[in-house]
Amino acid sequence: MNKANSAYSELAATFAHIGHLGAAEKTLEWESRTMMPTGAAQTRAKVMSALSIVIGDTMAAPRVGELLDRAENEEAAGLSEWEAANLREMRRRWRQDTIVPTPLRAQIAAKSSLAQQIWQDARAANDFKTFLGPLSQLIALQREVAQIKADAFGLSPYDALLDEYEPGARTASIDPLFDDLSAFLPPLMRKIMERQAAEPPTLDLPGPFASEKQYGFNETLATKIGFDFAHGRIDPTAHPFMSGNPGDVRITTRYHEDDVLSAIMATVHETGHAMYESGLPADWAFQPVGLARSFGLHESQSLLFEMQAGRSGPFISYLTPLLRDHFGGEGAAWSDENILRVYRRVRPSLIRVEADEVTYPIHVILRYRLEQKLLSGDLKPADLPQAWNAAYRNMLGIVPPDDTQGCLQDVHWSAGLFGYFPTYTLGALSAAQLFAQAKKDDARILPQLGQGDFKPLLEWTRANIHCVASLYATSDEVMLRATGKPLSADAFKAHLAARYLDE
Amino acid sequence: MNKANSAYSELAATFAHIGHLGAAEKTLEWESRTMMPTGAAQTRAKVMSALSIVIGDTMAAPRVGELLDRAENEEAAGLSEWEAANLREMRRRWRQDTIVPTPLRAQIAAKSSLAQQIWQDARAANDFKTFLGPLSQLIALQREVAQIKADAFGLSPYDALLDEYEPGARTASIDPLFDDLSAFLPPLMRKIMERQAAEPPTLDLPGPFASEKQYGFNETLATKIGFDFAHGRIDPTAHPFMSGNPGDVRITTRYHEDDVLSAIMATVHETGHAMYESGLPADWAFQPVGLARSFGLHESQSLLFEMQAGRSGPFISYLTPLLRDHFGGEGAAWSDENILRVYRRVRPSLIRVEADEVTYPIHVILRYRLEQKLLSGDLKPADLPQAWNAAYRNMLGIVPPDDTQGCLQDVHWSAGLFGYFPTYTLGALSAAQLFAQAKKDDARILPQLGQGDFKPLLEWTRANIHCVASLYATSDEVMLRATGKPLSADAFKAHLAARYLDE
Repeated sequence: MNKANSAYSELAATFAHIGHLGAAEKTLEWESRTMMPTGAAQTRAKVMSALSIVIGDTMAAPRVGELLDRAENEEAAGLSEWEAANLREMRRRWRQDTIVPTPLRAQIAAKSSLAQQIWQDARAANDFKTFLGPLSQLIALQREVAQIKADAFGLSPYDALLDEYEPGARTASIDPLFDDLSAFLPPLMRKIMERQAAEPPTLDLPGPFASEKQYGFNETLATKIGFDFAHGRIDPTAHPFMSGNPGDVRITTRYHEDDVLSAIMATVHETGHAMYESGLPADWAFQPVGLARSFGLHESQSLLFEMQAGRSGPFISYLTPLLRDHFGGEGAAWSDENILRVYRRVRPSLIRVEADEVTYPIHVILRYRLEQKLLSGDLKPADLPQAWNAAYRNMLGIVPPDDTQGCLQDVHWSAGLFGYFPTYTLGALSAAQLFAQAKKDDARILPQLGQGDFKPLLEWTRANIHCVASLYATSDEVMLRATGKPLSADAFKAHLAARYLDE
Repeated sequence: MNKANSAYSELAATFAHIGHLGAAEKTLEWESRTMMPTGAAQTRAKVMSALSIVIGDTMAAPRVGELLDRAENEEAAGLSEWEAANLREMRRRWRQDTIVPTPLRAQIAAKSSLAQQIWQDARAANDFKTFLGPLSQLIALQREVAQIKADAFGLSPYDALLDEYEPGARTASIDPLFDDLSAFLPPLMRKIMERQAAEPPTLDLPGPFASEKQYGFNETLATKIGFDFAHGRIDPTAHPFMSGNPGDVRITTRYHEDDVLSAIMATVHETGHAMYESGLPADWAFQPVGLARSFGLHESQSLLFEMQAGRSGPFISYLTPLLRDHFGGEGAAWSDENILRVYRRVRPSLIRVEADEVTYPIHVILRYRLEQKLLSGDLKPADLPQAWNAAYRNMLGIVPPDDTQGCLQDVHWSAGLFGYFPTYTLGALSAAQLFAQAKKDDARILPQLGQGDFKPLLEWTRANIHCVASLYATSDEVMLRATGKPLSADAFKAHLAARYLDE
């Protein structure tokens, strides 16, 4: 479809324009989290709002809807496979972005910006009550959004929200996966804990470790793994994240001066995200089909690198001598065995972002269940702390001593993100399934990790995940093509059993 | 004018939106010069082009022209002084931005982006011939632009270009100033050189000086002068510059490890620019009337800080002990007298950006004269090197050994900037006239500089220059109100004579 006058070509130009403006948004968002002086926040908020208005107006122009109709009705037959997929993704993005009336969107943007500030203070002060009002309002607004989308897309309200982050995903297929894990993980956790209790206790690596010195180590490691500083940066931030634009993929890491091991795996994790972005097809840069498929698949790439490859025996035994060398570490705490034990310690904990890979899904599943009830009205926001604590007691056997370490710990709900949490665990399941298949397809992968060489793994995931971007409509389809099976919990369960009970 | 439905109010909202998008442009431009990985240039070019299209389209919407007419014809009587000035500035900006047809603008953007690359290579290779083609094309395009603006604004072609950088400035008033300086400066330069030849030779401060250590010193100095890190940053770049948005004003400095003195005055210079931006009235942020008045007046603020205050005897004697202390300097090279002599060394030189304040205007004046001839066609681009070298021989008595140190040294023409050069010297003249008046108005200014205290000077220039932003139509009017006289070369000449022949 190269006809200059086609509806499709005009759409491609419009979406490229939107993509370029979106890249401006992303870089400025990165900038505000890494470089911006604190006093510039007010100006930046205005700038971001102006960009969001421009993008929204461009998308909502009647011409775009007309072009989509025309391209679908009159030009579909002449489109290549990628063009047809691009048109499908344009329609998807257009539906997501235009279905909610502008006043409601603006109201949500304003409320959630305010709610995030109140949430921060409430979390610091362990004061759920001050957050209750904003939370209730946000839930009411999200319910409106969910209903509008549900009616338009023919989905349940929760599925309609979920679909934005994980196209094609439905509670009907997630529930059995999560039920399976809910039954499997708690007893596994207890079995692992028993086993680990019989091992020598883990020793903390004696710090402090200067951030600059850690930075040097992580920079070298990221480069070794495949990170390209000609097309990216690594900077320190309070919360690690990745920001990806074509040819410009940046990650951040948080450095704890008393814990050298944490930043390393955070870097490997974000590098996994970065590899996905940098592996997306350049020919489709800035087009909807050229974007990463879903949040869950994105998380699968970070966890493939961090949990599957990064914490594998071969890679840890490559890593530990480098660590000792760089930080001048000596003695029992710096032994391969101890570092492996630290990286694989399993125990129930209160804070999701600090959880190990065995208990992490439990944190996710209970949030997934709670947010569905909040949205449906089955759980009143005022009863959230109680329900939260009960879920932790039931599933992990521990109870948060306060809401700061309980239902106030995550930013998501205050930011209006409902339907996002399950993608973390879909990512973990996918990572295990992909790694199992990759090792089957290429026997070099595991031994090469023992040389610190991610290339064979990267080649495999470039070919199977990165290169196809959003060519297929759902991540389920991507998984099916990459592994020959639909996504299940089998590989993840096998991985945990092998790593924590057999190895 | 608070009526929500007025044309003026709608214009204010539109121009605020344009201002916010312009702030995105500025921050991304800053980012590309300080932080961006080299490989991201292609993406960034697309992003900048998309932003420029959005801003151009917003400005060029027929509605804006209609609103301007309506506000001018029907609402003028009800506007406050600032609102009326804002409307005048909106019209000015609108005329500048919409008078040139979009295809011609696009052609210039594309050509000058390419020309800058070719210029960089040509400069590095001392190869004027490869730059001749692009330069000729750019001049032809600028001539078109100049003619369009000249016809529309009723100005000569060169004045029509100049007016964008220096509203209200005309060659008719600049020529006498520059003729005056051309006659005055060369003999003054020779007289000063004779005098300096009789003094002890200047001694270089023995380096190297680590950039980090220099950075620490400059950071402290900038803070002392008034720079606010809660609303700004200082970063290293190849070419120092300032980037200002409301509440977010950033400067950069270049550090030479073998020359500690150069970065210091560069920092003071850029801090002067930063003070102008941070002193603009917050109530008019993002409105045209809230912007700095002109490029010349902006340069007056940097030179007021650097040349007038920064190189004054009192400030240098405050600075030198700090320098010795921070860098552990000892001996004759570090003496007050030697450092003062280094900072005041006068001699003809080939490179504009390295010139002293006595010879700098000569570099500017000869470019001003050459670019007028290039634009009028009196000088053929192919003859530029010869004409350039002849001008240096005539005015400074030295001849560039090659074009790299001659007509290829500046980026301006390759970037399509014609009519920009004179603002440097208008700034120098203004700085001298402002400093003379400020010292007359507040006797504390000079003694306080001896304590490293810029506050009295800053207060004066905040009240007289910064706070009025673009309230008055021309910088001539700002100068008249601030100093009681129109701009002349008198104060500048008196300043040079006093500093270099009397002190």
